[in-house]
Amino acid sequence: MTGVLYGVGVGPGAPDLITLRAARLIAGAGVIAYPTLAGAASFARAIAADLIAPAAREIVMDVPMSVERAPAQAAYDAGAAEIAAALDAGQDVVCLCEGDPFFYGSFMYLFARLSGRYRVEVVPGVTSITACAARAGKPLVARNERLTVLPGPLPQDELRARIDGAESVVIMKVGRHLPKIRAVIADLGLTEMAVYVERATLPDEVVLPLADAPERAPYFSMILLTKGADPWL
Amino acid sequence: MTGVLYGVGVGPGAPDLITLRAARLIAGAGVIAYPTLAGAASFARAIAADLIAPAAREIVMDVPMSVERAPAQAAYDAGAAEIAAALDAGQDVVCLCEGDPFFYGSFMYLFARLSGRYRVEVVPGVTSITACAARAGKPLVARNERLTVLPGPLPQDELRARIDGAESVVIMKVGRHLPKIRAVIADLGLTEMAVYVERATLPDEVVLPLADAPERAPYFSMILLTKGADPWL
Repeated sequence: MTGVLYGVGVGPGAPDLITLRAARLIAGAGVIAYPTLAGAASFARAIAADLIAPAAREIVMDVPMSVERAPAQAAYDAGAAEIAAALDAGQDVVCLCEGDPFFYGSFMYLFARLSGRYRVEVVPGVTSITACAARAGKPLVARNERLTVLPGPLPQDELRARIDGAESVVIMKVGRHLPKIRAVIADLGLTEMAVYVERATLPDEVVLPLADAPERAPYFSMILLTKGADPWL
Repeated sequence: MTGVLYGVGVGPGAPDLITLRAARLIAGAGVIAYPTLAGAASFARAIAADLIAPAAREIVMDVPMSVERAPAQAAYDAGAAEIAAALDAGQDVVCLCEGDPFFYGSFMYLFARLSGRYRVEVVPGVTSITACAARAGKPLVARNERLTVLPGPLPQDELRARIDGAESVVIMKVGRHLPKIRAVIADLGLTEMAVYVERATLPDEVVLPLADAPERAPYFSMILLTKGADPWL
């Protein structure tokens, strides 16, 4: 019997925003897998740390920082091979993913490599977009409203075109793109409705009007453009 | 000491997709609140049923079906008053929301009425969009891709304009709008990439290519337009 690969979302950061199913799978796992970026600590592993059994084996895929895709592809190829060996030996493997595995998650690289050959179960998790909205006190969408999710690295002109005419907008992966995004939002006259959220649900979380956001933003930061609660009275 | 109002997401349907935090709050709640639609059973309550203490008081807000907004507003006004009385008496109140409270959730109507006067904590939940993607085996977005979330009740022309030129698209609240949405997707030549998902993560879940979807869809159904896993090899 080959094992099952579980792609498990561990949510936005607070360990108690892990689902009951994910917690059970992580606590029972003999083999845990996760990627790291250029040797940095894994955020997903940190979220789940208290649940991981001390005897669990950990498969760490170290993904190099590179504008070329081949080095990252090679890292996922090697990780997939190590996971496949465990599955072939009849062991289940639980792959940890911050947020949700299929929402800007690295798990899709493993899913693409292994889902044709092995049983793969994806366990959805709480995403950063609803976590940020919760912490900011800003309802995202209601009734027949549209939601647009944009990555901050998009070019300035495209960001502007996609935000203009949208309803609720979430801008992910703000990081070093903050000055560019801030300029687009100011140009559209939307600064007053914009909220900046950094490390949502963690002890060092930051929630600020965009006008007061710091000059330097971490990768795990987000900007929300929503109407707020009043229209729903 | 006044109580705290918790708006708690209970996830897409499977009871073990409730978060650890939500489970703890629900199990410890002396007062539970939730809306029902025209007397129908509450889906959120059904998801959380096994966690609710037998002695808990339940505040049920029955929201009438109506194209006019005033009757629903009156139902939320009355529910907010009943919740406020419990908070004034020093009791915490846990309001149950299917999915996430701020993502097409009715909790925002209570949040708009009560957040100025009481401490309100929103506990994010797993949304139906990542649950449907997980069950369909379709990664939603990666890298610098955009995600567009559209409600099915939008007019046909607007749906067409918003889908055309988008990357990944999720269409919510499909229900009786399925024939219209299907026609738009066919017209854009996208039927082959479209997946229909009904009651994701529940025992009677349905996942089908859109071409094979039933003529009649329930309210809790969704259509995903994504590239699938291959581009992430």
